[in-house]
Amino acid sequence: MTDTLLRYVPIATWGRNYTRATFASDMMAAVIVTIMLIPQSLAYALLAGLPPEAGLYASIAPIILYAIFGTSRALAVGPVAVVSLMTAAALGDITQQAGVGYAAAALMLAGLSGVILLAMGLFRLGFIANFLSHPVIAGFITASGLIIATSQLKHILGIEAQGHNMLDLLTSLTSNLHQINWITATIGVAATACLFWVRKGLKPTLRRVGVGPTAADIAAKAGPVFVVVLTTLLVWRFDLSTHGVKIVGSVPQSLPPLTLPPVSSELVAQLLLPAFLISIIGFVESISVAQTLAAKKRQRIDPDQELIGLGAANVAASLTGGFPVTGGFSRSVVNFDAGAQTPAAGAYTAVGLAIAAVGLTPLVFFLPKATLAATIIVAVLSLVDFGILKRSWQYSKSDFAAVLATIFLTLTLGVEAGVSAGVGLSILLHLYKSSRPHIAEVGLIKGTEHFRNILRHSVTTDPRVVSLRVDESLYFANARFLEDCIQNRVAGDPHVRHVILQCTAINEIDLSALESLEAINERLHEMNVKLHLSEVKGPVMDKLEKSHFLAELTGQVFLTQYEAAQATAANYSEPPKQ
Amino acid sequence: MTDTLLRYVPIATWGRNYTRATFASDMMAAVIVTIMLIPQSLAYALLAGLPPEAGLYASIAPIILYAIFGTSRALAVGPVAVVSLMTAAALGDITQQAGVGYAAAALMLAGLSGVILLAMGLFRLGFIANFLSHPVIAGFITASGLIIATSQLKHILGIEAQGHNMLDLLTSLTSNLHQINWITATIGVAATACLFWVRKGLKPTLRRVGVGPTAADIAAKAGPVFVVVLTTLLVWRFDLSTHGVKIVGSVPQSLPPLTLPPVSSELVAQLLLPAFLISIIGFVESISVAQTLAAKKRQRIDPDQELIGLGAANVAASLTGGFPVTGGFSRSVVNFDAGAQTPAAGAYTAVGLAIAAVGLTPLVFFLPKATLAATIIVAVLSLVDFGILKRSWQYSKSDFAAVLATIFLTLTLGVEAGVSAGVGLSILLHLYKSSRPHIAEVGLIKGTEHFRNILRHSVTTDPRVVSLRVDESLYFANARFLEDCIQNRVAGDPHVRHVILQCTAINEIDLSALESLEAINERLHEMNVKLHLSEVKGPVMDKLEKSHFLAELTGQVFLTQYEAAQATAANYSEPPKQ
Repeated sequence: MTDTLLRYVPIATWGRNYTRATFASDMMAAVIVTIMLIPQSLAYALLAGLPPEAGLYASIAPIILYAIFGTSRALAVGPVAVVSLMTAAALGDITQQAGVGYAAAALMLAGLSGVILLAMGLFRLGFIANFLSHPVIAGFITASGLIIATSQLKHILGIEAQGHNMLDLLTSLTSNLHQINWITATIGVAATACLFWVRKGLKPTLRRVGVGPTAADIAAKAGPVFVVVLTTLLVWRFDLSTHGVKIVGSVPQSLPPLTLPPVSSELVAQLLLPAFLISIIGFVESISVAQTLAAKKRQRIDPDQELIGLGAANVAASLTGGFPVTGGFSRSVVNFDAGAQTPAAGAYTAVGLAIAAVGLTPLVFFLPKATLAATIIVAVLSLVDFGILKRSWQYSKSDFAAVLATIFLTLTLGVEAGVSAGVGLSILLHLYKSSRPHIAEVGLIKGTEHFRNILRHSVTTDPRVVSLRVDESLYFANARFLEDCIQNRVAGDPHVRHVILQCTAINEIDLSALESLEAINERLHEMNVKLHLSEVKGPVMDKLEKSHFLAELTGQVFLTQYEAAQATAANYSEPPKQ
Repeated sequence: MTDTLLRYVPIATWGRNYTRATFASDMMAAVIVTIMLIPQSLAYALLAGLPPEAGLYASIAPIILYAIFGTSRALAVGPVAVVSLMTAAALGDITQQAGVGYAAAALMLAGLSGVILLAMGLFRLGFIANFLSHPVIAGFITASGLIIATSQLKHILGIEAQGHNMLDLLTSLTSNLHQINWITATIGVAATACLFWVRKGLKPTLRRVGVGPTAADIAAKAGPVFVVVLTTLLVWRFDLSTHGVKIVGSVPQSLPPLTLPPVSSELVAQLLLPAFLISIIGFVESISVAQTLAAKKRQRIDPDQELIGLGAANVAASLTGGFPVTGGFSRSVVNFDAGAQTPAAGAYTAVGLAIAAVGLTPLVFFLPKATLAATIIVAVLSLVDFGILKRSWQYSKSDFAAVLATIFLTLTLGVEAGVSAGVGLSILLHLYKSSRPHIAEVGLIKGTEHFRNILRHSVTTDPRVVSLRVDESLYFANARFLEDCIQNRVAGDPHVRHVILQCTAINEIDLSALESLEAINERLHEMNVKLHLSEVKGPVMDKLEKSHFLAELTGQVFLTQYEAAQATAANYSEPPKQ
């Protein structure tokens, strides 16, 4: 019972050792993260197409639920850029059809995502996320970053634009360019430039003028807040909102409301695939942040328990007026750097945000949307990494193809199509590669017991014996390739009496490959050629022994390739023909 | 030029060495195959839902085209059971919607299938067929055999029934059971029993009464023709067709007509997936027959050229009033056994069938459909192989799951859904298996340089060194698993200073795995642990050298695991802690 509790509720472990010193560290981290999160939460709500308060609500209950069920001690859960974009893309398509409000559909999306994550955690299905290869993730994040940045240009310029992929967005932006509001554009461009400088140049400048490293770091992290405050004051002082500068406006002063997602089987059917993709992408982003931070303190992350933590967080978001959330990179790093020791830091952040939601929302009334857009643009452009194209090109052409296809399809068709196609393509490319394995004909290096590729080394061979080494496990996708290979090698060479398969690199033989081996054995028998195996691994041999193959095998199974070559050569008294 | 000709037109090779003796062998085979094919062609047309003459037409031009372009010397191309069933399933769904005639849609299906096969051959895409694993094929053929046999019960009993899956068929059959025509049922059951006996019991009986083996064999193969003749005579003599026994009736006396499939983009869109599946299934069936027969004479089969041969045959079927065709098992074996030496035997068979189409169709006027149905039932039940369930269960549970799912889904949802789901499932199971590779912690066997699993062997280890052997190539699906494994092993053990990855079984490292190795290296570095590699294969090392990984690696790359263990242990002057 206790073990089960400790397994599924990690708070029971760290909660028992909570000291005053830990409290102080956690509290400090919480204050810093709270200040950073207020504008960020509003911005991501804007990106997801939701009212600003939804961003705050999505950062409160989910943090607490993750603190109870998650295994990472520094992960900060809440709205993040890519998931907010995916939310906007999923809801944009849906609410035009179904007769459900946009915010209500967002609750449903978070709820579905929570249930999917919980189910994956309970049934230990976290491996599904492994099918997202790194090239696909890198391509997807890069393309999403570009789409997000582009989608925010309308707020920077004060014009209208729609679309969830690059083509639609650019078309929409260019055709509305005449609507540009110059005051908004000035604020937007200035805020963007300022935020870039805060990110890149503030810390070195402060260090140069003698500020200590920690203080300079905190100032650089809190920098965006200054930009927020400054532009808000500007808009308020000069009454710019009456000149067409769009502002956040009135945000209800309230704790997160208790909400229930609208239960409609039609809506569920429409949101299921987006919710699944959001869950997987969110999980992958979250787990890689969590593992990076955990390694720094030699802590362990349990991926299946992480699914439960994130699932609980999303269910909480769904019940408290939020939208899909996950562990964010920037907020988690800030939390970690600011000294968070336990998930309690997250809970204190939640309290801070709750206070903000109740008391501070009037302060953001005059906050221009252009500033929020600038915050988003600066944050997401750091995700854009075209270097992956070069790195993958140098390393492997098939990985490059997967990156390129994912970027291209995400930009042109949107996030869901892009990531789905990327996953499909990387699976196909992997199967294709292993469907044409490297098969080397090997010969003996004179004076040794080693066998090497006859094309690369000077080796001795017997014209009556063909020794082949397959550098891949044998399974359905390459079974027939092996059949073709052997048939082609032997049918054209009347000298051959023995074929030896050296099985050093064969980690598995599935039923298809077994039946192919049976067919090869039988066909070689028809040609009066014997089939032998050498150096078969233990687990592979165990499986072969469960089948009839070894009984039907015309030749033998040898422990080493050398023994096999010796034994087959010894079958003849006359010297080998030339 | 000549080489290209020889490559794409195999007839140019064997045609030059054609002798009188070869002609005699080919002619003899052609006569036997023609006699066997007449009722079979009519029966498969019936199964595909087409008029009987379509079966004859589909056996004439395609045989000649395959003779020109195919590489197998004994393969006989024409309508086969499974492809005919798939044709019926594809057209049944379509022609209810599109305003195109059933026979016209069949031409389009054959044409599409031909174009797909030709394209696969020209672009050397034959490997696509490899994704059909043997368990999926076995399950699919077994389930298809059951569906076909059930679908023919309506002809045996003289009732109406519809459906392309087991559920629909059985529902339809039982609800119409009251319509049963007892004369038809008597003929049908008797013909079925008689054909079973011909197949199993005739040859031994003839041998017992002193008939020579060849004659007995030919008699057994020709047996079905006697049943056809006998039941036709019965129906004619006693005028049974006026008592409700359904007969083939009037078949036009004509050479295959010149036909053009109806060109409609809507129809193409609807038939594309079925045509693709028919092409793949047909190719797989054909190539395995061709390879089995070729091996008996040490001949070579070129799979890509086979695609071109089958593609040309299907285009021919489409232009001459046929429907999708492929290389059939039973007809090819009969052709081979009867002594066919070259594809010319097929051409002579085509001439024989053309004569039959022009002159002999009045003879089948009174042939009862029940007899044709009995021919089909007896033929397809030999395809049903429930033994695959037992064999796969014994050999591997995941192969068993693929068989079971394919059989179940084919029976309940139909052929297209069944085979698609089977392929998807076997790919997922394969990826799942390789996503959780066997990772053994290894130690040194005392007095040797061999390292073995510490759980299975008595070995010595150093508490500061963890040596892990991964029995699988590293790629995206298992990259994160390796990260988790190493992090979990090291995070909990403060003694560890070195991790050595023994790479004996790693045939490939893709970009995802490379980035995981980089992350592992960095995280271990955070824990003050060094990462080393040992026994990296040449091609893998070549790729690693193209990346930054080796420069960032905190440890070294060792030629052997023994060297790695020696070097890491030598780093310490003090004895290892206990």
